[in-house]
Amino acid sequence: MDFPTDQAPGAPIRSGIPEHGRIPKYYVVKAHVSALMDELGEGGTLPTERDLALRFEVSRETVRQALRELLLEGRLRRQGRGTVVAGPKLEQPLSLASYTEGVRRQGRTPGRHLIGLDRFPCPEALAAETGMERGEPVWHLERVLLADDERVGLESTYVSVARVPRLDDEFDPDSSFYAYLNDRLGITFGGADERIETVLATPREALLIGTPPALPMLLLHRISRDADGQPLERVRTLFRGDRFSFTAQLGPRD
Amino acid sequence: MDFPTDQAPGAPIRSGIPEHGRIPKYYVVKAHVSALMDELGEGGTLPTERDLALRFEVSRETVRQALRELLLEGRLRRQGRGTVVAGPKLEQPLSLASYTEGVRRQGRTPGRHLIGLDRFPCPEALAAETGMERGEPVWHLERVLLADDERVGLESTYVSVARVPRLDDEFDPDSSFYAYLNDRLGITFGGADERIETVLATPREALLIGTPPALPMLLLHRISRDADGQPLERVRTLFRGDRFSFTAQLGPRD
Repeated sequence: MDFPTDQAPGAPIRSGIPEHGRIPKYYVVKAHVSALMDELGEGGTLPTERDLALRFEVSRETVRQALRELLLEGRLRRQGRGTVVAGPKLEQPLSLASYTEGVRRQGRTPGRHLIGLDRFPCPEALAAETGMERGEPVWHLERVLLADDERVGLESTYVSVARVPRLDDEFDPDSSFYAYLNDRLGITFGGADERIETVLATPREALLIGTPPALPMLLLHRISRDADGQPLERVRTLFRGDRFSFTAQLGPRD
Repeated sequence: MDFPTDQAPGAPIRSGIPEHGRIPKYYVVKAHVSALMDELGEGGTLPTERDLALRFEVSRETVRQALRELLLEGRLRRQGRGTVVAGPKLEQPLSLASYTEGVRRQGRTPGRHLIGLDRFPCPEALAAETGMERGEPVWHLERVLLADDERVGLESTYVSVARVPRLDDEFDPDSSFYAYLNDRLGITFGGADERIETVLATPREALLIGTPPALPMLLLHRISRDADGQPLERVRTLFRGDRFSFTAQLGPRD
């Protein structure tokens, strides 16, 4: 089986095969399926594993390995019993805008599903990160994030009980926390430090989000301050790596 | 074998096990090894697979699966024939500062290794993204990125030949491209649009960077403009997901 000619002049780093060394057979199949996906276009249904194995004269296991990577990367998705070409990833702006606003801007309907809300004394590590007092009561709000009813992420928010004393009976957990802070408590954001990394979903996370275990995820850490520079919240948001990307607009360098 | 009690009150989303459902055996081992790593500290050497299998009364294959995830996540690293606890990930600021500056800020020595420099007529897709003319000559500069002589990434830069006509004989490919633009050509950056996603390393990328194939990577797309708003370059930088995270400082919302 020939390798498809995707090595055009100046081809981006994402394509191409090693100039030397062994090319894994599944990767050759992946490149062929990828070319087929371009022909089918978004939403197009892929032939079955069995048909692909016959077409490329490889075992079904080899086809499965190729499809598995394309699924992990979010280029394919399961739909009912079939496999279809996925659309582009959702783009979440890196800004103080909330998840809600980011999803709405792309014409999707944001939603949240409450996993739990509990309070506990602020541990050492959290105090050091946020500037909260060690031992002071802290809320932990954990929610699954939805876009058009699809589970796409999992968010943990830690905030001082003193700042939002009535979070447990006043806040609708299916609504925007930032809108609540702003509209009900008059708290505005002054800034935040963010960090993004890629991690593998743990079994608990995979179960809550409904992803395959060990799917590469994007983990966003945020520590935010209010307009007076006082610590406000510590957030960890886990986004499906196959469904999200993050965007930033950079200005002239400082 | 008991599961370690990492489900402290308000434990972050990264820890914990499913409240229901099956806990994979390898994940229980992973949690135990993780606790052991905390005791050992950065640079500490892990017992052998054989010793871990005996200690946790599981097969070596189960131990191997647990270690594989910890290696993919960059929490362990191979050193000679042993496996040691890795240090924190490098933090690369999302700013117009170059890779060089980002790595230096963390006390590491940046380096680059040239893979290739070639010129070709600007294809349709690149023209649409950057505002370059279709068919105008474009450079493609491909380099492996190093930190303290360790290969950590792979970068493709596309820039119009008209902007940097002598790139092939004037530029030292082991130096900073941004410093060259600024110091030799007086070109300053006006801004950039960036997008970050997680992807799996292709066989060619894995070979060039020296990573296991299918390691989760962070892929940074950048389209930058000069101080006059003219298109300057299109860059794709692939960073090892086990070695890098990205940071951003967000100001008050606009």
